[in-house]
Amino acid sequence: MRQEHTEPSAISISGGINYPMLKERRRRLGSRIFAAEKMLVTRMLQSIGDPPVQIVLWNRQVISNHDGRAVAQVLIRDHGALLKLVSDPERYFGELYSAQRIEVQGNLLDFLDAAYRVWPQNRQGWSGKKLLAPFYDTRRNDLPDARRNIHHHYDIGNDFYKLWLDERMVYTCAYFPSPSTGLEDAQLAKLDHICRKLCLRPGQKVVEAGCGWGALALHMAKHYGVKVTAYNISREQITFARQRAHAEGLDGQVEFIEDDYRNVRGEFDAFASIGMLEHVGTDHYRELGEIINRSLKDSGRGLIHTIGLNYPRPMDAWTERHIFPGACPPSLAQVMQIFEPFDFSVLDVENLRLHYAKTLEHWLQRYEKNVDRVTEMFDQEFARAWRLYLAGSHTAFKIGGMQLFQVSFARAGHNQIPWTRQYLYEAPYISLGGPDGKL
Amino acid sequence: MRQEHTEPSAISISGGINYPMLKERRRRLGSRIFAAEKMLVTRMLQSIGDPPVQIVLWNRQVISNHDGRAVAQVLIRDHGALLKLVSDPERYFGELYSAQRIEVQGNLLDFLDAAYRVWPQNRQGWSGKKLLAPFYDTRRNDLPDARRNIHHHYDIGNDFYKLWLDERMVYTCAYFPSPSTGLEDAQLAKLDHICRKLCLRPGQKVVEAGCGWGALALHMAKHYGVKVTAYNISREQITFARQRAHAEGLDGQVEFIEDDYRNVRGEFDAFASIGMLEHVGTDHYRELGEIINRSLKDSGRGLIHTIGLNYPRPMDAWTERHIFPGACPPSLAQVMQIFEPFDFSVLDVENLRLHYAKTLEHWLQRYEKNVDRVTEMFDQEFARAWRLYLAGSHTAFKIGGMQLFQVSFARAGHNQIPWTRQYLYEAPYISLGGPDGKL
Repeated sequence: MRQEHTEPSAISISGGINYPMLKERRRRLGSRIFAAEKMLVTRMLQSIGDPPVQIVLWNRQVISNHDGRAVAQVLIRDHGALLKLVSDPERYFGELYSAQRIEVQGNLLDFLDAAYRVWPQNRQGWSGKKLLAPFYDTRRNDLPDARRNIHHHYDIGNDFYKLWLDERMVYTCAYFPSPSTGLEDAQLAKLDHICRKLCLRPGQKVVEAGCGWGALALHMAKHYGVKVTAYNISREQITFARQRAHAEGLDGQVEFIEDDYRNVRGEFDAFASIGMLEHVGTDHYRELGEIINRSLKDSGRGLIHTIGLNYPRPMDAWTERHIFPGACPPSLAQVMQIFEPFDFSVLDVENLRLHYAKTLEHWLQRYEKNVDRVTEMFDQEFARAWRLYLAGSHTAFKIGGMQLFQVSFARAGHNQIPWTRQYLYEAPYISLGGPDGKL
Repeated sequence: MRQEHTEPSAISISGGINYPMLKERRRRLGSRIFAAEKMLVTRMLQSIGDPPVQIVLWNRQVISNHDGRAVAQVLIRDHGALLKLVSDPERYFGELYSAQRIEVQGNLLDFLDAAYRVWPQNRQGWSGKKLLAPFYDTRRNDLPDARRNIHHHYDIGNDFYKLWLDERMVYTCAYFPSPSTGLEDAQLAKLDHICRKLCLRPGQKVVEAGCGWGALALHMAKHYGVKVTAYNISREQITFARQRAHAEGLDGQVEFIEDDYRNVRGEFDAFASIGMLEHVGTDHYRELGEIINRSLKDSGRGLIHTIGLNYPRPMDAWTERHIFPGACPPSLAQVMQIFEPFDFSVLDVENLRLHYAKTLEHWLQRYEKNVDRVTEMFDQEFARAWRLYLAGSHTAFKIGGMQLFQVSFARAGHNQIPWTRQYLYEAPYISLGGPDGKL
């Protein structure tokens, strides 16, 4: 798939004989081809909302409507890349960038910001995308597909994620009590924030659906004195989590089960699911509701933490294909499909969008510091794809294309709920010298 | 319609001649009729979930499956009342109670609690109600209907509402910083809580859709230094609000407009709607979204405060008919129909269900203190209908049949939003000696 950069290539349409007449014909044909390319690129730019960028072709020819105000130059290195890009920019930009057939000259984040800001308005009006929407919900996340999809992303290798996550390996949006809080403290504050929202009391039983590398389950057990049963279908993550539980002497309090959330068994005081719903698929929401309904005691309380959208739409094609197969973040109305059939009451929704932008800023900084190591471990294509994914995600949260919802819920008639939300904010988090949850 | 209590009446099936044979026939027929009545009542009780109550007929005959554990006795005073009640208990209980053809002996709140707790599970399974659901959204709240519906409830007379609301005449859920906060302070805290959520700054322009007697608009102007344009279609309320603005010297800062929210014009920094959405009707939500979209600046922020439900279902028939024509509280997913088409981001949802149960407890206490005055102003039927409505609403919020959602929102790309929600809880409310919003 990968194609080396040869510059300038595509305009060498004749052989090497240098007669003046042939030279003239070649010039004319070249300029006609360039006119066609210019038209294609201009149309593509218009179709994606006319972002303030310059397109530079392999032959150094420049196409732009924003000469003075362009935030970045996009260098297209060959004719094939151009044709792919204009055919479906959403799908192929990422592929071509990863393969170095497209380069962004200038700040990648500034470029993505400029492109994403004009993009969404445009997508809403684009009927091709709307036509696809009905198929959006049918992405398969049945058991075998879910296992394959999760394996694709989360079993890349713990060593890879260690290069850019915090020390606890928390791969979800952090909670920054202030924007200047460091990532380690912010992830710890997030774990605490969730435990507070769940009103955990020592001795309670908690089930976690999709537990990542186990940070929340271990935090709950250690600081809130609860017993946790945690499910995950990523073998690499479960192995890591078990090792950590053993190292911290928490084996007796936390059980890590390598299985799907659909196989949760037992009755619990609290249900938590952090960053799993994105992978569940909206056609499985009622099933998830059933599982919560059968797992939660009458006095139980739950929290779902998920990437979300302001309105339903498919994940961008490149991310869905190359980074997160099967992923589809829901709108808030879609999330309600979990709760409505079972008469659950939503008690609180907190949108932490800017906290995810900040989290991704930290991840990207750490990633860039270790990008050479990533290239060694995999290859340059992989390293560039993940850079684009982290940078693009940061930008999407920053400009409001993606949301982060924490949704707390309980059964309809359960009245032992906190009177106000003030208690969440009364004591500093453990990471900032606040009290241990058990105390 | 009203029918006086004559006891025992319906069993007098023969004339007055008192032959022993006739007496015996009458006894037999009477017991056969009682057997039929008993069957009807027993079936009705089963159909509404078998609440722990005793039914006492006009002839002192008692029907109950819960002799030892009954929380109240329901006295049915005549045969016609019995037939009406068993034909549609949801619709006719309120009418018959109001007309004194049904009495509740024992604590009304205990009775309602017992009845409502078993009722909802039963209603979910009742196909007749489910069949009606598609028609639920078609309740008319077009402009003329909306005016008539609102007039029915809100133009009963300010003097009536003064008897049991707080001094500011706030007829929506209060916010009790602690359960022991008084009603006056809790309503003031609610106004402050909303202003804080809206991040008001002096000099900003606010539009309020459905302003009641003007308490929030006046509070915003006085304590947060903003200019408010407030809409309401209830003439009595608008007149009262204007008088109060004049008395407080706030005429220049608050404009009260007697018009429908659909006629809102202008651009604003904040949009607020407190207790209006219940009357809008879900088929008008997109239209409301359009109005918010055209009224809100790019940096704007909004808050909708509404009674809600855990899942869509019609208002109970009696309340819809006699108290709140056209009212239909939405589920949270339905509320999203306002925001999704316009790419608004939901920033925060707070469920204040128990605060509304507490608010209604205060209103009911004040109402009972003044019930003789209400009977003088109207009649006993009216006084009993409103007692039942307040008591029933208290119970619905207490047991989780109704919710109270405060939904804060902003445009997708607006990043000048508070970093966390901690600021909401940092200072006491004005009512508790906290700072003025302007400072």
